[in-house]
Amino acid sequence: MVDGKRVLQDLDELRALTADENGAQRVAWTPMWLKARAWFEEKLNELPVEHHYDAAGNRWVTLRGESEKALVLGSHLDSVPNGGWLDGCLGVIAALEVLRGFAKKYDGKPPFTVRVVDWADEEGARFGRSLFGSAAFAGNHTIAADRVRTDREGVTLEAALKNCGVEVERVGDAAAEQKNIAAYLELHIEQGPILERNKKTLGVVQGTKGVERWAITFHGQEAHSGSTPMEARRDALAACAKLALEIRPIAKKHPQSVATMGSVKTFPGIVTAVVGRCEATLDMRDLDAGVLAGMLHDAREASERFAKEEGCTVEWSKIWSIKPIPFYAELIAFCDAAVVETVGESEHLPSGPLHDAAEVAQIGIPTVMMFVQSLNGLSHNKAEDTKREHVEQAAEAFGRLAEKTMAWIGQAG
Amino acid sequence: MVDGKRVLQDLDELRALTADENGAQRVAWTPMWLKARAWFEEKLNELPVEHHYDAAGNRWVTLRGESEKALVLGSHLDSVPNGGWLDGCLGVIAALEVLRGFAKKYDGKPPFTVRVVDWADEEGARFGRSLFGSAAFAGNHTIAADRVRTDREGVTLEAALKNCGVEVERVGDAAAEQKNIAAYLELHIEQGPILERNKKTLGVVQGTKGVERWAITFHGQEAHSGSTPMEARRDALAACAKLALEIRPIAKKHPQSVATMGSVKTFPGIVTAVVGRCEATLDMRDLDAGVLAGMLHDAREASERFAKEEGCTVEWSKIWSIKPIPFYAELIAFCDAAVVETVGESEHLPSGPLHDAAEVAQIGIPTVMMFVQSLNGLSHNKAEDTKREHVEQAAEAFGRLAEKTMAWIGQAG
Repeated sequence: MVDGKRVLQDLDELRALTADENGAQRVAWTPMWLKARAWFEEKLNELPVEHHYDAAGNRWVTLRGESEKALVLGSHLDSVPNGGWLDGCLGVIAALEVLRGFAKKYDGKPPFTVRVVDWADEEGARFGRSLFGSAAFAGNHTIAADRVRTDREGVTLEAALKNCGVEVERVGDAAAEQKNIAAYLELHIEQGPILERNKKTLGVVQGTKGVERWAITFHGQEAHSGSTPMEARRDALAACAKLALEIRPIAKKHPQSVATMGSVKTFPGIVTAVVGRCEATLDMRDLDAGVLAGMLHDAREASERFAKEEGCTVEWSKIWSIKPIPFYAELIAFCDAAVVETVGESEHLPSGPLHDAAEVAQIGIPTVMMFVQSLNGLSHNKAEDTKREHVEQAAEAFGRLAEKTMAWIGQAG
Repeated sequence: MVDGKRVLQDLDELRALTADENGAQRVAWTPMWLKARAWFEEKLNELPVEHHYDAAGNRWVTLRGESEKALVLGSHLDSVPNGGWLDGCLGVIAALEVLRGFAKKYDGKPPFTVRVVDWADEEGARFGRSLFGSAAFAGNHTIAADRVRTDREGVTLEAALKNCGVEVERVGDAAAEQKNIAAYLELHIEQGPILERNKKTLGVVQGTKGVERWAITFHGQEAHSGSTPMEARRDALAACAKLALEIRPIAKKHPQSVATMGSVKTFPGIVTAVVGRCEATLDMRDLDAGVLAGMLHDAREASERFAKEEGCTVEWSKIWSIKPIPFYAELIAFCDAAVVETVGESEHLPSGPLHDAAEVAQIGIPTVMMFVQSLNGLSHNKAEDTKREHVEQAAEAFGRLAEKTMAWIGQAG
């Protein structure tokens, strides 16, 4: 039903149009993103579909079926700055190819409605609010926080959205699109090294890991690097360095847990002063809510112990968190079958990165994701890559998953 | 010979004129610094002295004696932004008071010439080049590096100097002032906690510690915090954190050594990415050149071990270094005697911070410094303080040291 070569051809076209020597530049709410979306709209001309943008800027393409009950396939066209050629757009383009297949197979009128969604601003690269469009769809929009967000140049999120025809006050109206959705499927690159390490082409995603994301500040005493004896120091960096190392054994207690200190800032941050204040971020993830809570507890306790040892104090401030979101058991089984039929074997793994699928699953819509192997586990930069034959196989397997899901919607009906 | 109350009165006047609610604002090459220097010039009106600026912007005040051989007393009027009320200006104002005392005692014509120097830009706060004026005096100017220095607003050092009547190309001519100098004395606040901890008012400085100042960069692999298993990471922050902790036992092997990691920067430095590159600074100091070289060797070796353990590489790049500079034995003895006569007991200690005295001593001019106790070891901020009675005692002891040195110049003649 699906032509993997056409998926590759579309991906190459989009890359030629929206990437430069540093990688993909489809940052949401920028002209290059609008250009990508205009290109996508042209692809729809040949198809018997309706399409529109919802109140949050998500694009919905609808192939009407005999029933209004809908199978939704989607991902996002936006990228990080200097991004890769597959992250997000693979899922949208493969979804379009599957819709094409259904249109052809059923001569324009499948038994159930098929929809493709291109979520707005999955990455949050410009304003720091990821999953913007899918969160609005799921009723998890955060208007108060979003209204005051600004980019590096001081442009407000509100102004940037308005420029793209989206009113920040109305984004919650995107929830109207929830109506009649029977299932949601998303294909994505893994963005990690597990499939490659285990020599698997395609993976079945068990769910998205829960995330605890915190800002941690150690307060010590700024002091002169030349005149302050070692034993008289209250070095905030030392306390933070201990925590940077301690989060690793905490995460390694559980096979799928991860814990990352991604940012450290030192104040005053000059070569001649003992660090008086050290600000760090911590991001911890696991598919099991209990394990995740335990990691958070252990890290917090360790930070307090280290602060005390160094004559410092420590403050924790939550940046953001999300619960683990398991995907739908029957769809996981279909995904496994589709993968095995296509490449002979499958691998089940959780998703560490968040995806729009998590927002969709959160509101009870049966959801599953399929992963295709990433080379060297890289993403969010131009070195991101996947073997071209794997992209073709992924599109084919995704088509099989969509057909199985369509059949299931009929039975479940 | 010295009136400690007048020193306090001058300090209070200068503070009222050049500090705001955040502290002293006498940053070199700014209008507030020029204001401080103009205030100082007014103080000279009543005295039988000549004065001029040399080619590097150092001000020289000369009380001509029977002999051209000169005793020089000095420090600096410039401060860091939001600085303290004593750092630098105490030494200049006390020097002026001693000169007043000599003028009075010898009725305008002491046996040897007495000079006060207000060094230009000791702090390097605006352009990152400390000891600017005293280095030029000592022939250690760095015109090529200085010409391209800029402040935060992009103003070049060259333009800022020109604005103050100093030509960057000519600063080396300040070396002409070396002629006939027989000894150099400097009074300064300790800027550290040792005297207070040992319940001593005044200290005799053995010399300035050597400094090794390096930029260290760990290169790992940026990776997604959610999708990269713990064991697949090459975390540049982890390698750096190990070093931040290891420099402490390295320094603690020797009683007066210090080692400081003052700045850590993480790249990309975002909550959702494993740190791919980590840049840190290291500042190590000791009065013994062999000890200092050993510390540098140990830190370097440790950094390479940690880089290897974390799958990273490490690069070291020298920012700056200076050898330990011991002060002059006979002047150290006079300083000890002056301190004991004034407050009953003395303490000998090295200076961790650098001072203009180090540049003077480097070219073979007999030099010593006297320290007065700092409260809580603080400096370079408005909380910097010293008890007012200790300031008075410091000025008195400094006068005694100057008299002893004057007598010694006569004997050494």
